Amino acid sequence: MSTVAVIGAGAVGSYYGARLAEAGHDVTFLLRRDYDAVSSAGLRVESIDGDFTLDAPSIARRSDEIGPVDWVICALKATAIEEAQALVAPCVGARTRILVLMNGLGLEDRFAEWFGGERIFGGLAFTCINRGEPGCVHHLDYGPVTVGHHLDDPAELDVAMALWQGAHVEVSTTPSLLAGRWRKLCWNIPFNGLAVTAGGITTDRITTDPELRAAAIASMREVVAAGNADLEDRGEQARLDGDATVEEMMTLTDAMEAYRPSTMIDFVEGRAMEVDAIFEAPLARAQELGVPTPLMALMTAQMRALDRDRAAHHG
Amino acid sequence: MSTVAVIGAGAVGSYYGARLAEAGHDVTFLLRRDYDAVSSAGLRVESIDGDFTLDAPSIARRSDEIGPVDWVICALKATAIEEAQALVAPCVGARTRILVLMNGLGLEDRFAEWFGGERIFGGLAFTCINRGEPGCVHHLDYGPVTVGHHLDDPAELDVAMALWQGAHVEVSTTPSLLAGRWRKLCWNIPFNGLAVTAGGITTDRITTDPELRAAAIASMREVVAAGNADLEDRGEQARLDGDATVEEMMTLTDAMEAYRPSTMIDFVEGRAMEVDAIFEAPLARAQELGVPTPLMALMTAQMRALDRDRAAHHG
Repeated sequence: MSTVAVIGAGAVGSYYGARLAEAGHDVTFLLRRDYDAVSSAGLRVESIDGDFTLDAPSIARRSDEIGPVDWVICALKATAIEEAQALVAPCVGARTRILVLMNGLGLEDRFAEWFGGERIFGGLAFTCINRGEPGCVHHLDYGPVTVGHHLDDPAELDVAMALWQGAHVEVSTTPSLLAGRWRKLCWNIPFNGLAVTAGGITTDRITTDPELRAAAIASMREVVAAGNADLEDRGEQARLDGDATVEEMMTLTDAMEAYRPSTMIDFVEGRAMEVDAIFEAPLARAQELGVPTPLMALMTAQMRALDRDRAAHHG
Repeated sequence: MSTVAVIGAGAVGSYYGARLAEAGHDVTFLLRRDYDAVSSAGLRVESIDGDFTLDAPSIARRSDEIGPVDWVICALKATAIEEAQALVAPCVGARTRILVLMNGLGLEDRFAEWFGGERIFGGLAFTCINRGEPGCVHHLDYGPVTVGHHLDDPAELDVAMALWQGAHVEVSTTPSLLAGRWRKLCWNIPFNGLAVTAGGITTDRITTDPELRAAAIASMREVVAAGNADLEDRGEQARLDGDATVEEMMTLTDAMEAYRPSTMIDFVEGRAMEVDAIFEAPLARAQELGVPTPLMALMTAQMRALDRDRAAHHG
């Protein structure tokens, strides 16, 4: 069994941390908003795979109360990336590994600068999870996690798989973390983007409206092209298959209930959105490589303006 | 002097109708919201070219109180196109001409079906005019009107020019109404579209943000391409010059104060937006002709979804 610190125990961090605790790992959750609720009533997971509660999970208000662990799972919002180093550092010892379970491109590069690349992993959670009342997360659909290693070291991927053994999470590995990141963006850019820019709508509105569906697919194809150019430029073998990606992402999304992507929730609740990591960074990379991405550019411009308005009004 | 009926006396109709009245024409305004205000205090125009008030303009609540006139100026919102026939018909006699002073593509076709094409003109107002308090319009900037004839008859254009002679409006004619319509769309699609989809923002936010400015230009180029394909398909000689159009529209918009396009005002005030005429109709035509218009398609999908939400929330 491993010691695990969950830094950024929002919906995603709480859910996957709870799954590791359920499997017997010694998991401590860094909590802010939900500290008192979890302290008094435990951490509740309402899941399509069955509800469960961690009655008395280990929790902390500050990272230095946790100290060095085997695994840090960093599930902060990408908008908090500048705080990540300070929040994670107290939990990092000589042999600590860090799983970056966040949305967006380029985040592992930051962690590698701070803590060295050999201990950094990226986690790609394909799941529908929202926060419920304090101390409760709602796991609505899906749940697989794909793990990649920052240096794509196969031996390290085995170590990561060992952590999840016995946990009720479907975990697989990708030999190319970069390909995994772009694959995830193939969902996030169209669906987080349209859910916000079409007015704060759920995924079913996008999949069932012929014009929005076509826009989702067209923008997804830009992400595929950008990702493949990036992979080629970095000398990686992996490529995304455009048709297969479109088919898979649309089929998965068709099968979801009316889902509220995290960015859409941030939008309607007036919080900062993950524009840099999900939109700006991939767009900048595509433009650097000369890949035509007019739809990504338009949505990024819209997201940036909408996010600025939120910041101006709310914070 | 001519008898004129202004049908749809919102900001644009009231302004240009007032200019014709000022020039001595016998103008009657069909009013709903502002009837009582204008009845008691007149119609006030606050204009960068000098304020003036029509103290006791001729006004009516119903078109049949007006009866046949020389000129109908129809300045309804394009969302009211289905009501236009009934509102205009009582003012149409054997020799009546109709100037369709509305935004969007294909509106003159409808008027031609109802009243015959030879009496139909299109008016393209390039101006910044907003409604003020009841009975008052704010003319903020610009004001030129380009007039085209539905059948592009040069003799009819002379008749139209004669109407405006002596009025404080800069009027010119276009030998191709269709080219004029597309030229106007080169502003409306980028600026009305982005002003709404980037969150209800003013034009200066679009022109000064490099990403939004680039998106405005990129979408404008799509409109130029679609317009030229349409002109070619219909056997017209006129063409839009892409570079010149971009240069001109951006320069004009750079010089505006922070302007709220009409569609943006409709958006933030929760009213139906002119999505069909400004977005759907040009997009449908582009798609029919096989012109790639991914940005127009994305913005149209967003506008449609946002408009549906407004309809749902506000009735």
